Amino acid sequence: MNARTTTSFSAQPPRRPSLPERRISRRLSALSSAEHGQNGAPTGTTEDELTEEIEKIKRYEDFTTIDWVQDAAREQLRRRARRKENAGFFERDGHLGWRRKLRDSYDAGQAWIVVTLVGAAIGLNAAFLNIVTEWLSDVKLGYCTTAFYLNEDFCCWGEDTCEDWHRWTPLWPANYFLYFVFSIIFALTSASLVKAYAPYAAGSGISEIKCIIAGFVMKGFLGFWTLLIKSICLPLAIASGLSVGKEGPSVHYAVCTGNVISRFFDKYKRNAAKTREILSACAAAGVAVAFGSPIGGVLFSLEEMSSYFPLKTMWRSYFCALVATAVLAAMNPFRTGQLVMFEVRYDRSWHFFEIIFFIFIGVFGGLYGAFVMKWNLRAMAFRKKYLSQYAILEATLLAGGTAILCYPNMFLRIDLTEAMEKLFLECEGGHDYDGLCEAKNRWSMVLSLLFATIMRTFLIIISYGCKVPAGIFVPSMAVGAYFGRMVGILVQALHESFPHAKFFAACEPDVPCITPGTYAFLGAAAALSGIMHITVSVVVIMFELTGALTYILPTMIVVGVTKAISERFGKGGIADRMIWFNGFPFLDNKEEHTFGVPVSQVMTSEVTSLPSTGLNLRSLESLMSQNKYQGFPIVENFTAKALVGYIGRTELQYAINRAKKEGFISPNAKCFFTQPDSTAVQTPSTAAPPVTFDAIESATGQQSVDFSRFIDPTPLAVHPRLPLETVMELFKKMGPRVILVDYRGRLAGLVTVKDCLKFQFKVEAHETTRDDSMLDERQERLWGIMNRVADWIADNVNGLSGGRIKLGGSGRSPGILEAHTADPRDHLSPIPASHHAILDGTEDEDNGVELQSR
Amino acid sequence: MNARTTTSFSAQPPRRPSLPERRISRRLSALSSAEHGQNGAPTGTTEDELTEEIEKIKRYEDFTTIDWVQDAAREQLRRRARRKENAGFFERDGHLGWRRKLRDSYDAGQAWIVVTLVGAAIGLNAAFLNIVTEWLSDVKLGYCTTAFYLNEDFCCWGEDTCEDWHRWTPLWPANYFLYFVFSIIFALTSASLVKAYAPYAAGSGISEIKCIIAGFVMKGFLGFWTLLIKSICLPLAIASGLSVGKEGPSVHYAVCTGNVISRFFDKYKRNAAKTREILSACAAAGVAVAFGSPIGGVLFSLEEMSSYFPLKTMWRSYFCALVATAVLAAMNPFRTGQLVMFEVRYDRSWHFFEIIFFIFIGVFGGLYGAFVMKWNLRAMAFRKKYLSQYAILEATLLAGGTAILCYPNMFLRIDLTEAMEKLFLECEGGHDYDGLCEAKNRWSMVLSLLFATIMRTFLIIISYGCKVPAGIFVPSMAVGAYFGRMVGILVQALHESFPHAKFFAACEPDVPCITPGTYAFLGAAAALSGIMHITVSVVVIMFELTGALTYILPTMIVVGVTKAISERFGKGGIADRMIWFNGFPFLDNKEEHTFGVPVSQVMTSEVTSLPSTGLNLRSLESLMSQNKYQGFPIVENFTAKALVGYIGRTELQYAINRAKKEGFISPNAKCFFTQPDSTAVQTPSTAAPPVTFDAIESATGQQSVDFSRFIDPTPLAVHPRLPLETVMELFKKMGPRVILVDYRGRLAGLVTVKDCLKFQFKVEAHETTRDDSMLDERQERLWGIMNRVADWIADNVNGLSGGRIKLGGSGRSPGILEAHTADPRDHLSPIPASHHAILDGTEDEDNGVELQSR
Repeated sequence: MNARTTTSFSAQPPRRPSLPERRISRRLSALSSAEHGQNGAPTGTTEDELTEEIEKIKRYEDFTTIDWVQDAAREQLRRRARRKENAGFFERDGHLGWRRKLRDSYDAGQAWIVVTLVGAAIGLNAAFLNIVTEWLSDVKLGYCTTAFYLNEDFCCWGEDTCEDWHRWTPLWPANYFLYFVFSIIFALTSASLVKAYAPYAAGSGISEIKCIIAGFVMKGFLGFWTLLIKSICLPLAIASGLSVGKEGPSVHYAVCTGNVISRFFDKYKRNAAKTREILSACAAAGVAVAFGSPIGGVLFSLEEMSSYFPLKTMWRSYFCALVATAVLAAMNPFRTGQLVMFEVRYDRSWHFFEIIFFIFIGVFGGLYGAFVMKWNLRAMAFRKKYLSQYAILEATLLAGGTAILCYPNMFLRIDLTEAMEKLFLECEGGHDYDGLCEAKNRWSMVLSLLFATIMRTFLIIISYGCKVPAGIFVPSMAVGAYFGRMVGILVQALHESFPHAKFFAACEPDVPCITPGTYAFLGAAAALSGIMHITVSVVVIMFELTGALTYILPTMIVVGVTKAISERFGKGGIADRMIWFNGFPFLDNKEEHTFGVPVSQVMTSEVTSLPSTGLNLRSLESLMSQNKYQGFPIVENFTAKALVGYIGRTELQYAINRAKKEGFISPNAKCFFTQPDSTAVQTPSTAAPPVTFDAIESATGQQSVDFSRFIDPTPLAVHPRLPLETVMELFKKMGPRVILVDYRGRLAGLVTVKDCLKFQFKVEAHETTRDDSMLDERQERLWGIMNRVADWIADNVNGLSGGRIKLGGSGRSPGILEAHTADPRDHLSPIPASHHAILDGTEDEDNGVELQSR
Repeated sequence: MNARTTTSFSAQPPRRPSLPERRISRRLSALSSAEHGQNGAPTGTTEDELTEEIEKIKRYEDFTTIDWVQDAAREQLRRRARRKENAGFFERDGHLGWRRKLRDSYDAGQAWIVVTLVGAAIGLNAAFLNIVTEWLSDVKLGYCTTAFYLNEDFCCWGEDTCEDWHRWTPLWPANYFLYFVFSIIFALTSASLVKAYAPYAAGSGISEIKCIIAGFVMKGFLGFWTLLIKSICLPLAIASGLSVGKEGPSVHYAVCTGNVISRFFDKYKRNAAKTREILSACAAAGVAVAFGSPIGGVLFSLEEMSSYFPLKTMWRSYFCALVATAVLAAMNPFRTGQLVMFEVRYDRSWHFFEIIFFIFIGVFGGLYGAFVMKWNLRAMAFRKKYLSQYAILEATLLAGGTAILCYPNMFLRIDLTEAMEKLFLECEGGHDYDGLCEAKNRWSMVLSLLFATIMRTFLIIISYGCKVPAGIFVPSMAVGAYFGRMVGILVQALHESFPHAKFFAACEPDVPCITPGTYAFLGAAAALSGIMHITVSVVVIMFELTGALTYILPTMIVVGVTKAISERFGKGGIADRMIWFNGFPFLDNKEEHTFGVPVSQVMTSEVTSLPSTGLNLRSLESLMSQNKYQGFPIVENFTAKALVGYIGRTELQYAINRAKKEGFISPNAKCFFTQPDSTAVQTPSTAAPPVTFDAIESATGQQSVDFSRFIDPTPLAVHPRLPLETVMELFKKMGPRVILVDYRGRLAGLVTVKDCLKFQFKVEAHETTRDDSMLDERQERLWGIMNRVADWIADNVNGLSGGRIKLGGSGRSPGILEAHTADPRDHLSPIPASHHAILDGTEDEDNGVELQSR
């Protein structure tokens, strides 16, 4: 039996199987060498030129995903072309060697140049934001008599009792009122700027950036205007006292910086996949400057942001974070040498018996995360349904309400970061804040902290997602710190009540045994881990905040417990939930599914494909205008459906336009997507037929157009019975835009990430049928109450002012803010809750938003 | 034009294309639902049973790679089967719900149970090793009069001047001699044990584990004997004074522990891919206990060890490292609360002007790494060629030589970790070691350190790779520390000479400005990064050693510079070079290649494939015995070569054996790999034909055997013109054993990792043609000299002793060690330098070692 046989792949399926082996293998190798351009130099050049040209016009449409496989292939082509060019052009002129070397090293070093520039810009921006935020926060409470632009710390620099810093008035109700007024002014300004100039600057941005780094395209989300507005509005939003943090937005402005700067560089302008690497690095730098934690930033980028994180990106991230942190350190915004306000040092170690309390704090973190996520998502749904018209009013009212509620409480009144700074500190060494450390205040402090915990949690739920730059990291950490400090004080009280109990035997007699500050610190770690579902990066961030090796084990224990608890309430942190909520096409690599179905169940089997020959130009154009698919498989003919390749919509459009531009083409011209005899053509031994359509059209009079150069002849194709899980792995790991399904060489269907997600949602919906109707009803009722309150206020103000101040009826035209509601960019969140639409497969294509439809 | 058409995939290629759409789509959906087992319950069960059975017999052959894709698919099947079983069996008997829940949670929690057990075992082992190593190291110098089993520190615990610890004799030459004797005894014991019981316990193990985690199978490398011998011999090897460290071996014994323990759990016993996740976690724990750096361990596992590191593995690693470190901390082996000997704290900060010296240290690190790698590889080649017979003698002589050379130098005499501990310390606070801090000794110290640097580097080059457990981390760090401290002392001298220079303006007047200890610390980081080519993990490890937030930026700068320098001397650290040197089939994910060839250039086009029908059993068996391929593609027939599936050798063997066992089968029985009409069979509406061969054989009398259940009907297949880079990405990211190449449904070839590597080596060899002949000549000359020296020594000893001591002539039978050379396990490294063999494609298949040949 002759099991060893040879290969042949000719264009027409079962043609000439009896050919001698030698001839076939010669042809085969000729084909491959032609392909990699060793023999066919002229062909190679035009091919390269063409690729270059496509690269230039290759722009991904908004709200689609990029094709990592094709981008990588294109990058390979580009490198190869340059190498060849070098080998040819420069080596002929030997004296040009240095130019070549210079160019080569410039090309190799471009990434590092970009990363350095971006890092420095991020560091500078961070320093600027820190200074402005502090000043704005302090200005709510008072002013510096020596120079209005100094904040309290700088105003009183080096003085024990501060004479230069004045409260606005000596009366507390007046101060209260001014505090309130400043808050709403800041919030109003911030929300208005966001709405007017850069709607994308609202919110945290983490979830969108996650999708963008995974390959989603959202034009303008990382643009210059977003960067500018986010940088201006972030200090305002934080200073307004809203329960929002700067960490999410830090990541956003850092990534914007990266995107804006990398645009100036050729390598990144053209390659969307390469740019993603820079964006990953920027995300790391963003967290690094926000927490003063360079390694924590790298790990955050790895653990949370990036679906694809090769070592090269890790090194870039590392370098970018290093530069950003170094610049920030050199700017020294707090004049303390610290990188963030809440950096802390502990002198004492912990005891093994404290682990039981650490576990308790860990449990709190998990519960906190689950609770906030659940209710925040509901608040988001409500906001999206009823409040999208009133974004500015909402933010202003929230800031006003927050100011009124928070001023009386000593922990809520001050800035979130400042509160954490005070709560983290040890009591020894002269650190005290309003008697926090005094034993006699113990119970009032506990109550105060409990109130702060509850109130802040509530405020986070309603504030996160409002239309100003707003992160959730620091508010969550603050809640954890309140709670942790409370537990710490209670444990301290317990120890002081029973100093000789066996349980406390590890305590040394005459030194303080319990450090409540460390509990606050661990609480912050727990809450952060609970809300974001990250572990390793939290430990490193907290570690870099304290530099205390001693506390790494407690932090790990707390975070481990939090993770175990929060896993019980569903997978994914708030960023993942937001992605799910917004219906972005994102395959989460944290999740593992067991569907047990082959890909044929999921694929679109009714595929709009193009025949490789015989289609005329007019039909092609009408076909293209009829649908919005991002690409078309090419088959040999509709009967046999032998798969020939795939062409993207952009390439096809470009090819048609170019053909038209270059001369008159009859609408009846036949379109060819393959060479008449592709095997023969590829073999250099036969006379080369006209290769590009330029040649064809000038020769024959535009009766046929050759698009074969523009197709991707080797799209990824799988067997219809391949398990869906494997296909999803392919999407996650290789990142193609579309995977074709072929059965024995014949096109059987086509599958996209969207198809997979649709199926996944269907299965999940089947497993957990939620009762949305009651929720809807409750939301409706809440909206009714809000309207009535608004009416009542409007009436009263109207009545009290004798008609001089007239607020719009039933809250629908909110007075002074009316002008803005007509803004065309009104939908601050242009992404509708397409999630439910995906479920039943009826999403509105005209919505302006579309999940990657090939 | 009707572009929308429907799909049909029938078994016979162009059959009935004119069927009505509805019928086809019905069939299609029936096919898929039959596939995922919704309609065909009985079929489903037998299928599951069969899968289970194959799982049991599925063992990968030695020196092959595992198939990640198939393993994942099998795991999916297993889960699905269990879910179905649960749904059926348990829900009928409602009261059994708790049992089901228990079983479910046991299954889900198995991973965590394993990780906890493994972590605890690793921590205990590490504590034990630390104590034993310290005692053995000290016993070379003296003994404790109160209890012989105490080391110097414990013997003198709490006393200022130590009375209980005695040197062996009051005479230094006698001490010198005893030191020498102890060294060779330790080395001899260690090397003999390794050779006799576990040859795999030699060396560091990092590179092999890297390959194993990537999917390579090396039986016994992670077995119990390796674990035991490595744990016993590691302290001996370190105490012998050889320039070897315990970090590589730590990783090895940690991974062995994981492998041994996970074998007791069902989930891991059956699934080789799942076990790899545990091994990654163990590698993290190994580094964590070696450096007392849990996060550093996780990052090391990520950066260096694991080619596939999903977040789930990261969390496991985190947890495993946490448990191991916590156990180690609880054992407190040094009684100082420190996790490693060279943990350190710095009180002072650094100054910006010092960056210039840091850069210098970074440059040194890069150069050191490149230098050591180059020469160590040559030493390895020499060892492999000439010394493989004399492993024990080599280790003993090395230890003896090291002892003789090192004793006179104060930094070389003591243990490597002890040396680092002393070099890292600040001079203030009573830390001093033999006048290291005194200004008057400055120049002698500089010379001493310089000598130590050079000597240690030389010793590392010749010692790393000798046949005792031996890592390279700590020796490299020690070299860095010597050099760094030297630079530090010089900078200090410079500052003290010109205290008022502008350059030193940042120094405060009356406090010490330069801390030489920090230079030693940074030097250690640089050398470690230089030799291993890791960055982020080095920073974190160093950070966790000092806990000094202040020094994170200098460390990052130093490591960054080192990385930049070492990249200039080629990619990959010493572990990668070793992989390359040993010729393991490992696709490095750090490297990026631009080949610009399609996969058809690389694939094996002469594939031994099986026809789906018509082959008789006898031919099949003879075919299998003729070659050693790990699997065979199945084609419909040899003329059309329509690809039907793929069958692994193991599965095929099992199927044949099973068929034989179950009854008499004629050798002429026809083998079927597909159902006669697969479409019809899969459709539940038609009457089901006999499904398994059990049915067939009982019915028809063993004239045909059905193997269709055992094939993989959906192997990964790609287009022949797909770029090689994409195929390599597929291998790296998806991890299949083999990728088939099909052109329009017809088998064109087959490609394995080995094929890719062969091509890569060929290209690399083409680019950098090295002149090996001169090297060979030099090695030959060196070997000649060594032989002559051995002869001379033998003659002299013979003469001096009057013939009573007779050493074998020309070193070929090394006296007392002779008995061992006849050991059948003589080839300590069973992996020949197959690398060159790979280059010319002529590797000897009988060698016992084979790169994954499908």
